[in-house]
Parts: sequence; structure tokens; C-alpha cells
Amino acid sequence: MNYDIHQDSIKIAVIGGSRIEGDSKVYDIARKVGQHIAKRKAILVCGGLTGVMEAACRGAKDEGGLTIGILPSTESSTANQWVDIKIPTGLGYARNALVVLSADSVIAIDGAEGTLSEIGYALTYAKPLVGLNTWEIKPCKALDVPAMTTADTPREAVDMALGLLDKNRL
Amino acid sequence: MNYDIHQDSIKIAVIGGSRIEGDSKVYDIARKVGQHIAKRKAILVCGGLTGVMEAACRGAKDEGGLTIGILPSTESSTANQWVDIKIPTGLGYARNALVVLSADSVIAIDGAEGTLSEIGYALTYAKPLVGLNTWEIKPCKALDVPAMTTADTPREAVDMALGLLDKNRL
Amino acid sequence: MNYDIHQDSIKIAVIGGSRIEGDSKVYDIARKVGQHIAKRKAILVCGGLTGVMEAACRGAKDEGGLTIGILPSTESSTANQWVDIKIPTGLGYARNALVVLSADSVIAIDGAEGTLSEIGYALTYAKPLVGLNTWEIKPCKALDVPAMTTADTPREAVDMALGLLDKNRL
Amino acid sequence: MNYDIHQDSIKIAVIGGSRIEGDSKVYDIARKVGQHIAKRKAILVCGGLTGVMEAACRGAKDEGGLTIGILPSTESSTANQWVDIKIPTGLGYARNALVVLSADSVIAIDGAEGTLSEIGYALTYAKPLVGLNTWEIKPCKALDVPAMTTADTPREAVDMALGLLDKNRL
Repeated sequence: MNYDIHQDSIKIAVIGGSRIEGDSKVYDIARKVGQHIAKRKAILVCGGLTGVMEAACRGAKDEGGLTIGILPSTESSTANQWVDIKIPTGLGYARNALVVLSADSVIAIDGAEGTLSEIGYALTYAKPLVGLNTWEIKPCKALDVPAMTTADTPREAVDMALGLLDKNRL
Repeated sequence: MNYDIHQDSIKIAVIGGSRIEGDSKVYDIARKVGQHIAKRKAILVCGGLTGVMEAACRGAKDEGGLTIGILPSTESSTANQWVDIKIPTGLGYARNALVVLSADSVIAIDGAEGTLSEIGYALTYAKPLVGLNTWEIKPCKALDVPAMTTADTPREAVDMALGLLDKNRL
Repeated sequence: MNYDIHQDSIKIAVIGGSRIEGDSKVYDIARKVGQHIAKRKAILVCGGLTGVMEAACRGAKDEGGLTIGILPSTESSTANQWVDIKIPTGLGYARNALVVLSADSVIAIDGAEGTLSEIGYALTYAKPLVGLNTWEIKPCKALDVPAMTTADTPREAVDMALGLLDKNRL
Repeated sequence: MNYDIHQDSIKIAVIGGSRIEGDSKVYDIARKVGQHIAKRKAILVCGGLTGVMEAACRGAKDEGGLTIGILPSTESSTANQWVDIKIPTGLGYARNALVVLSADSVIAIDGAEGTLSEIGYALTYAKPLVGLNTWEIKPCKALDVPAMTTADTPREAVDMALGLLDKNRL
């Protein structure tokens, strides 16, 4: 497949749990987020595994987008089948820092415990962060920027992820 | 100084921000947590820097305890002066995963963004986690265990960190 | 620019030092290696910085190839200008493990100390390893596979990197 | 057991393979290195596993020394029984960088592929490096310092590791 990649291609990370047992609604939301990312010509970055990560990659491929999976294991074969560029790290969950760092902005969807560490990294690295039905977090003290912006729909999440980025760049 | 170290010495991680500007109350709380950890003959693990980390190390040294600092940089000299064993990692904030992994249980105090990533790792690695005036978090779905137990005082936080551990071991 | 990327696109890592002061011969060799990698439709992976890494990326771009840079810092802006996909890791030299892991086979060119760690990782992870005017290494005991295959020219190095891979896959 | 630990306690890393099948001579050498490290009141750092790492830890414990094991896995239980302070990293072989970084000087004994990556890191981070029947390495160009100093006996290796350190500190 052919991809148009530029030096200034935007990368959006989708973070979320690897297990979304029986929850086809979460799968659909993540897939739609992936679709909108690809429609906007952004590159999708994620942890490369199952669940939310798989759904988002699949959505991006529905629309001919490019996907990058930053994997916890040393084996490329652990990636879901919709990952184009596999980066096996062998770092376990410490790779969560890299998923966030590799992206320009971050969308959190649903998510178990690991997702919370990624939300923490998005805030640490001052990446624009949009939440879609994910952890609610409340800081114990004032932060320099709002902890997380909340979206209601997949399209809105992607719009916000790109919009916050433009704002950062001004 | 002499330390009594056993194969089964308990390690407790204290996580919290490196900046607690002008907030002597947070410093005092963290220092007291360090004191109680040392009194209970546990080893203190932390990120080795300033703020909550420094206060906790200092408290542990008040009571003759041993302290381990897992540092983000490659330089031992970045550790606060109350760190006995310095582990420079060069990993940046990815070292947050190691602070949590190295401990048997975790106490979160105050904290900015990085602390949230460590809370996420404590949950990911199923370490007993006690919060003391820190981030409030609410999962978007049922987890296997409560996300975080909350303590009201330094002594209670350490009691809980050890108590939850005993419970896990049964 | 448009790239044809497949699930089974081969990735070849080029490892080598960031400083090749005044040594235009090394720069030329690395650039030619990059050119041959792109001509063979493989993706170039490297550490993303200057010196051998830059020359190899530049060579790949001469021939319209795709380049991935796995960076030690947290900043995409540290990549040389011929890196298409920037993966900032914040891991410092620990990222050397990831450069090797992300590739199917590895070509070592020239190189200072860091390159030796990457040669060690290529052997550790059993990646086909081709040396081109690089460290000479002699194990203290018998290994399962030859430590390193040596090439005489850029073209031969790329041929060997691909050939050893085919052999591994049989 | 009681340990006298100071802020300026020297840490020496012993690097070497996890498998030394049937080679009791290598085991004996590594154990003696550990003994001499403890006799000189230095703290032993290693990768915490079997083979050379185990032998060195055991030797240090023969003489009442303190041992630190920086483990590739997330599980403390993977440490050999002579490790006092276990640092599970979950980083796989990327933890090799940390073993070297945590020490003031490095002794390489025997060793398979992973040891070569650690030799590379010792050179990268400019740690005094002493080899004892290990990889022979020859740089392709002049380095700022000799690549590796070679010792003939365990005692000499430890003397050199400490002596080179004193020289660095002047």
C-alpha cells in the first residue's frame, strides 16, 4: 500500500486497554477514532496490541492510514494485524512512556491500569490529551494546564487532538 | 552507618512530585512517612530527587533507615543527599516504572503529573497502593482490585502499605 | 513523498557513531549503504542522529526510501533532517537495544563505543549482523553462530544483510 | 546481616554470562572476584541472574559484602539467592545499560553476547573497565581512552578496577 509521509506528518497516539471483553461499543468507538485519524492524514501510534489498540489500528487501515505499534515485547509477531510499522522494545510497560513521547497528541479511550500510566505520561510530557470515556482524574493541586480535555464522540476527540496541537504550536 | 538488611526486607516506594514549592506541610508529611517506614525496618525506594522524594529520604535517615534512589539521569550526583544507594538509569521518566517495580508496596503523596504515571504503574503491577492527599482517580469500569486505598496520616499510610502487603501474601 | 509499505517490508538497522570528524570516506560508505537499502525496498532503521546515522538516512532518501530514527532524547527535533519517522524515546543509550530489536538485520559501520553495545545487542537478539570497517571482536568461547560477518563494500553489506535473513527464515 | 554503607561506598559491576555450563573454572574466578570486591568494602552490582553473576554475588557474600541485582524481568524471584537488593526492571536486556551506569567501575568475566553490549556501555559511559578472560575487542579507530584493561587474576582485576577509579577522580 502507498502512504504519503511528510516530515511534518502529525502523529496521534491512541491509548487504551488491551482487553475490552465483550464490549463491542468500546471497540467501535476506538475504530472510529482510528478512521478519523486517517481521514485527517495523521499517523496513528499505539502500543500495538489487542483491544482498543487493535480497534484503532483497524479503523486507520479502513481509511488507508499508516499505523505504528510500539510493542512491549521483543517480538514483532505480537503486534495486531493492522500495525504497519512494528517497533518491538522489550521494555514491558516502560514502553508506555515511548507511545506517548512518539506522538504529537494523545487520545485516551476506556482503559485499564496501564492507560492511567500513559495519561500520566501525556501530562508529564505536556502533550495535548483528550479523553473519551476513560479514567476520571482530579489533581490534588493546581496544574499549569488542564489535566485532560474530554470529548463526546470519536470525531470530536480527533478534532480536539488536532486543535489543541495547533494551539500549542502558535 | 550500619544497616540490617535481609533477603526478606520489605521495600516501600514513596512517589510524589519533585516540586513542593513553599508547601512545608507536604514536606513534613513526606518526611514523617519516611520516618515511619524506617521505624518499621522497611527500605525506602523512591525516584531519588527533590521535593517529596527528598523529604521521605530525609525522614528515613532521621530514623536510621536505608534509602534507594532510582534516578532519571545518568549521574549519581543528581540524587538528594539522603539517598544511600543511587541507581542512575538514564531512562528519563521511563524510570517511573522501575521505582514502582522495585518496591513491595507504594505510597503516593501529593504529586504532579509524573506521580500519576507511577500510580498507573502501581495498579498495572498490582502493588498495594496507598494515597495520602494525592490525585483522585476514578476508573471508567470495574477493576479487579480497588484502584487506591486512602490514608489520613503518615503513620496510617505506612501501616496500610504493610497491611495490604501481608494480605496479598496470604 | 509516497512510500510502498507492506506488513512484510524488511527493516535493516545501520549502526555507527555520531561523530565521523573529517572522515568523508566513512560518510560516503554509510550513504551508499543507505542507497542500497532503499534500492532493495527495505526500510532503514537507525539511531536518528548525526554521523553514520545521518549519512545512511541521506543515502536512503537519495533513492526514495523510508527512514526511521529511534532517538535517545525526548525531542523529535534532535533527528537528522533525513529521518521520516521519528521515535523519541528519552532512554538515552538504552535505546541502542531498540534500534537493533526493531530491525530484521543489522549493518555496523565504523563506530565508537556505543556501536559496540549495539553489536552486542545484535548478537544477543540473534539478528544477522554484517560489519563494514567496524570493531573487530573475538569471543572468549564458542558461540552458536559466528559473531559477525564482514563485508568489503556497501553493496555487499546490504546483500549479506538480506541474504543472512533469508537463510534465517528457511 | 549488618552492612556498613556510606554515601561514598564504591560500587563495582561484574558483568558476564548467565550460562557457564560445566565450566567450574569460570565460576571460581567470578566467585573470587566477588570475594575481593567485598574485602575491599565495595558494593557488588550485577544483573542478578545465574552463571558469572551468581558466582560473583556468592563470593561477595562469602566475605559479608552487599550485593545489588538489576534484573531484566519484573520479578524479584528471578534473582539468584545471593542478591541482597533486587531491582526488577522489566526492561529485558535494555537493563544492561543500567548495570553499568549504577557502578563506578566494571569487571568483565568470560561472557556471551550480552556481555559485549555491557562492555560497549562501559566504554560509552567512560567507566573504568577491566577484562578477565573475556571478549577481545579492537576498535576501528583511535579512542580517547584504551578500550579495556586486562587483568590476569581476580585480585588483580579488583585492584585495577579500584586503581583506575582513583586515577579518574584525580
